[in-house]
Amino acid sequence: MAPEIRVIGLTGLPEVRPGDDLAALIIKTAEDQGAGIEAGDVVVVTQKVVSKAEGRVVVLADVTPSPFAEDLARRTDKDPRLVELILRESRRIVRQEGSVLITETKHGFVCANAGVDASNAGGEGYVSLLPEDPDRSAAAIHSALRERLGVEAAVVVTDTFGRPWREGHTNVAVGVAGMSPFVDYVGQADPDGYLLRVSTMAAADELAAAAELVMGKLSRVPVAIVRGFRYERGCGAARDMVRPPERDLFR
Amino acid sequence: MAPEIRVIGLTGLPEVRPGDDLAALIIKTAEDQGAGIEAGDVVVVTQKVVSKAEGRVVVLADVTPSPFAEDLARRTDKDPRLVELILRESRRIVRQEGSVLITETKHGFVCANAGVDASNAGGEGYVSLLPEDPDRSAAAIHSALRERLGVEAAVVVTDTFGRPWREGHTNVAVGVAGMSPFVDYVGQADPDGYLLRVSTMAAADELAAAAELVMGKLSRVPVAIVRGFRYERGCGAARDMVRPPERDLFR
Repeated sequence: MAPEIRVIGLTGLPEVRPGDDLAALIIKTAEDQGAGIEAGDVVVVTQKVVSKAEGRVVVLADVTPSPFAEDLARRTDKDPRLVELILRESRRIVRQEGSVLITETKHGFVCANAGVDASNAGGEGYVSLLPEDPDRSAAAIHSALRERLGVEAAVVVTDTFGRPWREGHTNVAVGVAGMSPFVDYVGQADPDGYLLRVSTMAAADELAAAAELVMGKLSRVPVAIVRGFRYERGCGAARDMVRPPERDLFR
Repeated sequence: MAPEIRVIGLTGLPEVRPGDDLAALIIKTAEDQGAGIEAGDVVVVTQKVVSKAEGRVVVLADVTPSPFAEDLARRTDKDPRLVELILRESRRIVRQEGSVLITETKHGFVCANAGVDASNAGGEGYVSLLPEDPDRSAAAIHSALRERLGVEAAVVVTDTFGRPWREGHTNVAVGVAGMSPFVDYVGQADPDGYLLRVSTMAAADELAAAAELVMGKLSRVPVAIVRGFRYERGCGAARDMVRPPERDLFR
């Protein structure tokens, strides 16, 4: 049978507030929409609603920038309070040129502005931070789906990152639970019998990308269900997707 | 209505040979499978079958390596004939460390081994090169779909690239026709009224990633149809996705 996957965007999730039971909101929204959540689904959740539920939205007016943040803000033409938050979320500045500020977050992700972002954060003056531990966030939703629905469904928490060499951003996985983030072909033979050597696909990132096609940025579709993708169940985490710096040629 | 896309893998495409009419094979396979190709679809085609149809498969035994290729092969522990082909396909070596050889291809893509790849190329001793002009390859399929089916369907030609900072490969677009490769949110307001500043999504890469979820590497699914994604029709090319070197902080 021909392989087919469906990517179903969930609409109607209520505005998420600190302390909300995000899993419960997702379950109810999926049911209201008639999609439900089934065993083997991958539930893809944008970082924004996870951060909101976890209270990781900051009012810029409450932030006091350090002298270093003030200085860096001048050089990058950014709000000093935003730069202060970026620095707090980072363990290293990877590149700074013009208004571009690329850092390594405390999770190890390399991205612009440490994932601190004002879009879809609640309006002017609000910014969202990445979840403290997005793998833990994903695991909490994964457990809740199992406990409340009796369903084994993987969970991917996503954010939108730029990348070198190519224009445009793509959605990537910052949190994973219930699946390996990879599909590993190393040592397997292609249909011609050729042994594959270096093909490990970042399936969690491809799921994040697929979900973004229905999520968009303007349409309040913060959750998508990917149905029909055959993934390797089990333990796995987005932190495994961070290339160790010593094996990275571009830091 | 909730947004939903379907990603339909095409099975049963015959083994592609040099000079084959790839568009005809895709049309027939889609019809045989009952999926067809509809207006607004995105037809995602892996580079491998495009290269095969265009005669871009090379028998390694026919390649004579230059002295520089011989030397680089020793340092990278690669077949000198493979290195010779990589150099011919490249305009610059971006990084070389251990067995990793990352170059900028003549198209401007930055990737390992200039896209020269032995997997799914016909067995031991064969390698495939990227199409000479993958945008032109995509445009040819796009035109053929319009002429023969009367259908406006975008086409994305894909390859699998690694990337800095993150483990695993993802599928990306190396050729695009019939659509903008981007979804541009710059200057639009999010649901809270916040003006988006830097959000240009690389939709063609996300389509490539979504398609890979049904393609895999071992299963002879070289074509997928993405149905239900609302893209901006019109001209567009994967070459527009290459970040100009002067704006790139990682070359």
